[in-house]
Amino acid sequence: MKHLSAITISIGDELLSGKTLDSNNAFISQQLDMIGIPVIKKIIIGDIAQDIKDSLDWAFAQTDVVTLTGGLGPTHDDITKSVLCDYFDVGLKLYPDILEALKERFARRGFKFSESNASQAEYPQNAVLLENPLGTAQGMYIKNKGKHLFVMAGVPREMEIVTTEQIIPILSKLTSASISKVDIHSIGIPESTLYELSKPILDEYSDLKIAYLPKQGMVTIRVSFPSKSMDEDQKVKDEIFGRIRDLKPKNIYGRDDEVLPILIGKLLKRNQATVVTAESCTGGLVASLITDISGSSEYFQTGYVTYANETKISMLGVQEQTLVDHGAVSEETVSEMLSGSLSKSGADYAVAISGVAGPTGGTEEKPVGTVYIGVSDTRHQNIKRFQFGNNRILNKEMSAFSALNLLRLLIQEGNQ
Amino acid sequence: MKHLSAITISIGDELLSGKTLDSNNAFISQQLDMIGIPVIKKIIIGDIAQDIKDSLDWAFAQTDVVTLTGGLGPTHDDITKSVLCDYFDVGLKLYPDILEALKERFARRGFKFSESNASQAEYPQNAVLLENPLGTAQGMYIKNKGKHLFVMAGVPREMEIVTTEQIIPILSKLTSASISKVDIHSIGIPESTLYELSKPILDEYSDLKIAYLPKQGMVTIRVSFPSKSMDEDQKVKDEIFGRIRDLKPKNIYGRDDEVLPILIGKLLKRNQATVVTAESCTGGLVASLITDISGSSEYFQTGYVTYANETKISMLGVQEQTLVDHGAVSEETVSEMLSGSLSKSGADYAVAISGVAGPTGGTEEKPVGTVYIGVSDTRHQNIKRFQFGNNRILNKEMSAFSALNLLRLLIQEGNQ
Repeated sequence: MKHLSAITISIGDELLSGKTLDSNNAFISQQLDMIGIPVIKKIIIGDIAQDIKDSLDWAFAQTDVVTLTGGLGPTHDDITKSVLCDYFDVGLKLYPDILEALKERFARRGFKFSESNASQAEYPQNAVLLENPLGTAQGMYIKNKGKHLFVMAGVPREMEIVTTEQIIPILSKLTSASISKVDIHSIGIPESTLYELSKPILDEYSDLKIAYLPKQGMVTIRVSFPSKSMDEDQKVKDEIFGRIRDLKPKNIYGRDDEVLPILIGKLLKRNQATVVTAESCTGGLVASLITDISGSSEYFQTGYVTYANETKISMLGVQEQTLVDHGAVSEETVSEMLSGSLSKSGADYAVAISGVAGPTGGTEEKPVGTVYIGVSDTRHQNIKRFQFGNNRILNKEMSAFSALNLLRLLIQEGNQ
Repeated sequence: MKHLSAITISIGDELLSGKTLDSNNAFISQQLDMIGIPVIKKIIIGDIAQDIKDSLDWAFAQTDVVTLTGGLGPTHDDITKSVLCDYFDVGLKLYPDILEALKERFARRGFKFSESNASQAEYPQNAVLLENPLGTAQGMYIKNKGKHLFVMAGVPREMEIVTTEQIIPILSKLTSASISKVDIHSIGIPESTLYELSKPILDEYSDLKIAYLPKQGMVTIRVSFPSKSMDEDQKVKDEIFGRIRDLKPKNIYGRDDEVLPILIGKLLKRNQATVVTAESCTGGLVASLITDISGSSEYFQTGYVTYANETKISMLGVQEQTLVDHGAVSEETVSEMLSGSLSKSGADYAVAISGVAGPTGGTEEKPVGTVYIGVSDTRHQNIKRFQFGNNRILNKEMSAFSALNLLRLLIQEGNQ
């Protein structure tokens, strides 16, 4: 058992040309960091055999763990496997079960199976395969002279699952530095404010590593520390999460995998309740986020996307006079969207959103980014006005997640 | 004048730990690519003097142009300038006018001017300064033995303005090459099949660089080549796109910024037509994709998310008997969802989707990933059965984009 460090190598012309951001290496870095293996250098290279070999030499000379992503696939620019055979002076080995599975997969989808696909069942002889349940290119683990090489496809989803399910467990056993971590999720607090609020608490603990991770307008605080025992770690994580959450319980909503769509699902299931959505500017995004969760049909049956005023009237029974007097983007309209969607669907909770997503359509009174978000049960409505920015997609996302957070608060308050 | 290539070096622990995505290098790559200077390797290192020097040696040994970002600023971990002095064996030179400007800047904002700030007015003697109008750390251009080194602060907007206003004009004068590029978008063709189909055509052209970029189950072919003149380049791009598209016009749908939600919007606007969505397993994702586009309210008014059977009956008028006889995931149900949504909304086109998103809920006859997708105008319906995989989110995405592609085909056929 010793302290390890890592170098990541990414292969791909699209990364070099800057058309694609290298989010893979950021993900790998974060994962390795969590188990106490710092990434000391990263390199990005093209689909060039000599460059791949040089990079492997260069990386192995400096560190024990090397990851290599990209360049695994059926097309000509995917040369990683042949380079590895050459580099380690081994041949390819055919995996008949993988070949069968590939053929079945193609048949099921009605595609012709071609020769170039068969190569997806061949891997260097010295590689242990790492299962990739989401694609045809399996990951590889090659041990060589005390060094550890992990090779993965560059498709983010596939790289992520191979990293978390296969590579991290292998490396965890090799490293002595075990790290415990808790992710604390917040919405509606600027990163700098969250930093200033949480700093005095986090400063009380020694040995904490803190990162503020912004995503889709929300910020997650990642707290990690050297592991002692499962029980002790859990106590520290519970305590830190509890104290941070209590700073802003309306905004700091969950930890680890409790992201909003999952949290909403848990709360609704526990209450055997259902939710209906009535969306204008978010255009179906709230419904889509809710239904991203397996099992959501238990608590979600109906969603209205009422983008036009006429649809708000015909589908939800919003009064024409309300739209004339207050406009579609107003507390009054959202209030009628809530009551209309509840009564028409028979759901227990409703979410309704109307706003100016932008980049055009703003007025002095209601500039781009103005969004009214309401939640309701059969007795209470809670409608808030939000002011987001000028980016349409970000406004949709912020509106949708803010709506889910208001829904969470309404359900949790009802439970008290 | 000669063909140049570049290597980018980024300094920063936050890039290594994966907390920050390296968007700077992507920007620099794009800018250099446009003037025909490909970035051949990128490296990311920490704030360590020896690593910076090693990287400079390594980069100059392989290429003519090197950019170095990060590590310029007043804090203790910003060591770039002292490393450069050491590396080139030169001293620091004080720029009195920059010192004056710095002091004024601090006074204007009401901050105290400290010693650590004064170092911002000192630069290595062999550097030509590159004006940074947005911050206190100026860019640097160091010519050394026929090689070109550009050094910038890591703050993205400062790096961007120094790159576009200073570095690109300098390098444009040194290089003779320029690159032209076309992205060709496809859906529903495996990467390997697309490769085999397009290869004979692409092989006819000399000097093409080809990359296959998979994303959300779709594949984009990126074709680039050395630029001759705007007119000639355009002709080549039109020809290649046309020939590739004609291989599979149902699957190869657009080029460059013509992704499906944008393409659908263009077609509907041109026809002054509207579309309604009736979604089961995609849960609002089609509506959300359509409304990601600014101006979509012109052609999208109404979306139904009918997740439960009862909602399919009450909102869309699907017959209970149809659901009993054929199930919710069936051609018959999707057909009634199409006709119901068209007649209830008064739209010109309808999209309807019902499937088993998974990971549970599959049967032998309709395994996870079975999705019926239909499109319709007031005269014709086109309903297809698709078989996707086991990943819920990917199934939603593939279903939604496949639906948009079928809608595109229906509108285009109607126009013929």
